[in-house]
Amino acid sequence: MTMTLYGRDLITTQDWPVEYIERALELAVEFKEDRYNHPLRNCLDRRTFAMFFYNPSVRTRQSFEAAATELGGHAQFLEPKSMRLKSAKSAGETIEDAAKVMSRYFVGIGIRILETAIEEYGQGDELLREYAQHASIPIVSMAHDRFHPCQGLADVMGMRQHAGDLKGKKLLQVWGKGALVRSWSSVQESILINSRLGMDVTLCHPEGYDLDPEVIKWCEENAEASDSTFEIVHDLEEGYDGANFVYSRNWMTSDFYDLASKHGIEEAKKRETQKAMKYDDWITTKDWMDKADDAFFTHCGPVDRNSEVTDEVVDGPKSIVYDIAENRLHVQKAVMALTMARTEAEDYPPEEFGI
Amino acid sequence: MTMTLYGRDLITTQDWPVEYIERALELAVEFKEDRYNHPLRNCLDRRTFAMFFYNPSVRTRQSFEAAATELGGHAQFLEPKSMRLKSAKSAGETIEDAAKVMSRYFVGIGIRILETAIEEYGQGDELLREYAQHASIPIVSMAHDRFHPCQGLADVMGMRQHAGDLKGKKLLQVWGKGALVRSWSSVQESILINSRLGMDVTLCHPEGYDLDPEVIKWCEENAEASDSTFEIVHDLEEGYDGANFVYSRNWMTSDFYDLASKHGIEEAKKRETQKAMKYDDWITTKDWMDKADDAFFTHCGPVDRNSEVTDEVVDGPKSIVYDIAENRLHVQKAVMALTMARTEAEDYPPEEFGI
Amino acid sequence: MTMTLYGRDLITTQDWPVEYIERALELAVEFKEDRYNHPLRNCLDRRTFAMFFYNPSVRTRQSFEAAATELGGHAQFLEPKSMRLKSAKSAGETIEDAAKVMSRYFVGIGIRILETAIEEYGQGDELLREYAQHASIPIVSMAHDRFHPCQGLADVMGMRQHAGDLKGKKLLQVWGKGALVRSWSSVQESILINSRLGMDVTLCHPEGYDLDPEVIKWCEENAEASDSTFEIVHDLEEGYDGANFVYSRNWMTSDFYDLASKHGIEEAKKRETQKAMKYDDWITTKDWMDKADDAFFTHCGPVDRNSEVTDEVVDGPKSIVYDIAENRLHVQKAVMALTMARTEAEDYPPEEFGI
Repeated sequence: MTMTLYGRDLITTQDWPVEYIERALELAVEFKEDRYNHPLRNCLDRRTFAMFFYNPSVRTRQSFEAAATELGGHAQFLEPKSMRLKSAKSAGETIEDAAKVMSRYFVGIGIRILETAIEEYGQGDELLREYAQHASIPIVSMAHDRFHPCQGLADVMGMRQHAGDLKGKKLLQVWGKGALVRSWSSVQESILINSRLGMDVTLCHPEGYDLDPEVIKWCEENAEASDSTFEIVHDLEEGYDGANFVYSRNWMTSDFYDLASKHGIEEAKKRETQKAMKYDDWITTKDWMDKADDAFFTHCGPVDRNSEVTDEVVDGPKSIVYDIAENRLHVQKAVMALTMARTEAEDYPPEEFGI
Repeated sequence: MTMTLYGRDLITTQDWPVEYIERALELAVEFKEDRYNHPLRNCLDRRTFAMFFYNPSVRTRQSFEAAATELGGHAQFLEPKSMRLKSAKSAGETIEDAAKVMSRYFVGIGIRILETAIEEYGQGDELLREYAQHASIPIVSMAHDRFHPCQGLADVMGMRQHAGDLKGKKLLQVWGKGALVRSWSSVQESILINSRLGMDVTLCHPEGYDLDPEVIKWCEENAEASDSTFEIVHDLEEGYDGANFVYSRNWMTSDFYDLASKHGIEEAKKRETQKAMKYDDWITTKDWMDKADDAFFTHCGPVDRNSEVTDEVVDGPKSIVYDIAENRLHVQKAVMALTMARTEAEDYPPEEFGI
Repeated sequence: MTMTLYGRDLITTQDWPVEYIERALELAVEFKEDRYNHPLRNCLDRRTFAMFFYNPSVRTRQSFEAAATELGGHAQFLEPKSMRLKSAKSAGETIEDAAKVMSRYFVGIGIRILETAIEEYGQGDELLREYAQHASIPIVSMAHDRFHPCQGLADVMGMRQHAGDLKGKKLLQVWGKGALVRSWSSVQESILINSRLGMDVTLCHPEGYDLDPEVIKWCEENAEASDSTFEIVHDLEEGYDGANFVYSRNWMTSDFYDLASKHGIEEAKKRETQKAMKYDDWITTKDWMDKADDAFFTHCGPVDRNSEVTDEVVDGPKSIVYDIAENRLHVQKAVMALTMARTEAEDYPPEEFGI
């Protein structure tokens, strides 16, 4: 069987066949083991990866820029606000023209666009797909309103590092209180990829914190196809019971976009925070972890300490949060090498690189 | 004959002997044909090119930064607003000191400074020439109020790709309506370089949209020296008649600076836009193109669709706009290699590299 | 004797044994003599150095980014304002978490944080030391409220270039008037490193411009240990008399932080400037230089011409300001190579590299 990831977009892992996901994870492990001397170490030699930050970022920028550098290439840090793109309100370059021209300069484009840069849920995803339609080079999500594929890959890689085969293991994906009014992207990517790869996923959140219904439907289909389970509960006892991994993370309600359009983004954040901070029990403590099955604690970072999780847990012996943060680098190198480096793929021993 | 471009500034192609222009174009074609493996592929190895953006940019930043990367070097993205430079109003470092210190760190400096960052036409050009006077490394215009030499080189390269020898071919440089209140730089560079290299250039614009008189005078001298023609018309029929290339582009009136100083930049832009949008006929349509001689459509980008040109024309079979955008990369690599890479120039086979 | 600089922070040269300082200076001279072909020329190959600019900068950013590039690596330009770090007022990532994650991506972190980004003198230094405590990679000051170690190294390197052995030579560190309300960092680093390495240092400033008392105490101890002298005078005649090097530079009073907290930063700067500009004599002129011992004029840059020093002096034959600016690049390459490049240190001939 031949597998060609070269040229492929990565907007969510749900778009990729499982074999492609496994190939990326396998190469990421190789990159972790042999960070600077891997045969593909220079596969983006003098090539440019463009990073479009509609929203700023902490480790996404750090890890993508480092990934391009470690493959011999360079990542350009671009902020579309200074790019005179056409919008409903102003003249400027169309996405079609921007995508076609950038395809002449670059080997790939990463895009980050979150809640605060759009008006309705789904617009970020549409933007990425519009770029993907017109660009002849891969579009990679660096987190958008719906998905965060590289975080999902890093999560899986980290859990496997610490627990080996994950089939049949229980992942508790639990909402946490907090003042940061977080995106749905990391959480939705996590439940999608893990239900797809055969974990038993329990999504646990207070009433009113429902996620995207289409994502939930896909999770159910994923679980059925992989012979695992996917369930949604609103009771913490039920959630923690028997969990092998606990991933707590705050997220906003679906009201956020309405609030923001009516009252502005700052007021929307304030109201979401006020609501979220009332759920005193929704923090991962040592007591809650004791109800799980000697579980690992995981998180996509940055951690909102003592809201989403106590210091005791996140600094404890079962926390794998720094390893997962590190994995962002390795999986992004793998995705970039596989989708953006043609010539080198051919040079690389086929039995290793192609499948 | 020996030609030394090493160390040479590029503020407008008008400053360069024709042989230097041809050398840069020749190398740009080589870079296009052999993008990553050309003998000069690493000629800026570990060297730094500084990019000074007094104004933000779309593809200029993308293409210059990619050009440095593709030659093995690195382009630093610098915004002078955060650089504490001395001005009439505030203490700070003089341009002389800044230029002398940067000459110790870098192999070249690119500068972009447009209408909105200056108070009078010509100040941007003066700034570049002041840097050039004090720096011991080349200063390259990345578009300023008067000129845009790399755009001019990319235009010529693109027209030759599609039509071969351009001598005696007619270029219609035509004003277009639009809301973007564009700079004179690309247009002035186009009529200068093309009259110089022997095209018959027709500049066509409504009354009141005159360009820099000194540039017009140079165009007339260029045409005489190259045995071609240069004319200015205000009638579209006359302009399109027999044209082999149509290059439509909006530009501001010479009143812009006065308006901006009296009423502020936003108001000046608003008035210019109101005036410009009244010229309904001044858009390149299929009907107008039919009056030309099976002409190619060209543009420096970003294209203001359905103001400067209709979708039908810019997306049609005779449009060469994406190729010209791509050429920015190749010509800038050529300019950087020839003016900033001494050692490598000597290593490079002389019969290939020097002339 | 074995010396391991690998992994070592550089927050001030005062923290380093003299042997380490000398090793860095020695390697910096090698890098100056053999800028692109030194055996360590690629010692940061594909590695990333993170630059954190809490405050913007002119040549610090230029020279650090160029230094990483010239060693084969890449410097990421990061502005913490967009990094959602935890503060007293807002939720976000702790410095501990940020430092631990960055240690997984990078080989070193540079931090710049000056007066206007903090509330009390010393907070910048504390921040650097907090990063250093949690990071497993070196933290290097790129100028902070207390120190500027790379400037101190560049100063010493430049004075030795022009005058050889500096033991027993007199350095006049003199306050200058000016409107830029400068940091204490460069001046304090200068008097520390030069008293440590055996120069006779005279600090000369108007009453009311006292520096950090702890730094002054260290300078006295340094002078005693190196068998040299350290003195503070308020009389310019006394200061210039017999000086071999004159280093004039404006600095703020210790009232700045109070003024800024009560009246805002702009008002504090205005008051400091009004006060400072009254000291008409406190400018290095040809007349003052004539009272010194055929002294060299030195400055950390950017120079505030005709406030700190006249054009005649700074452009005169004894001025070494551009060489010192250039040295920033060389010493920073040396510091990065020695503290951040393990493997390459082992490859490098031990008798050259290790001691």
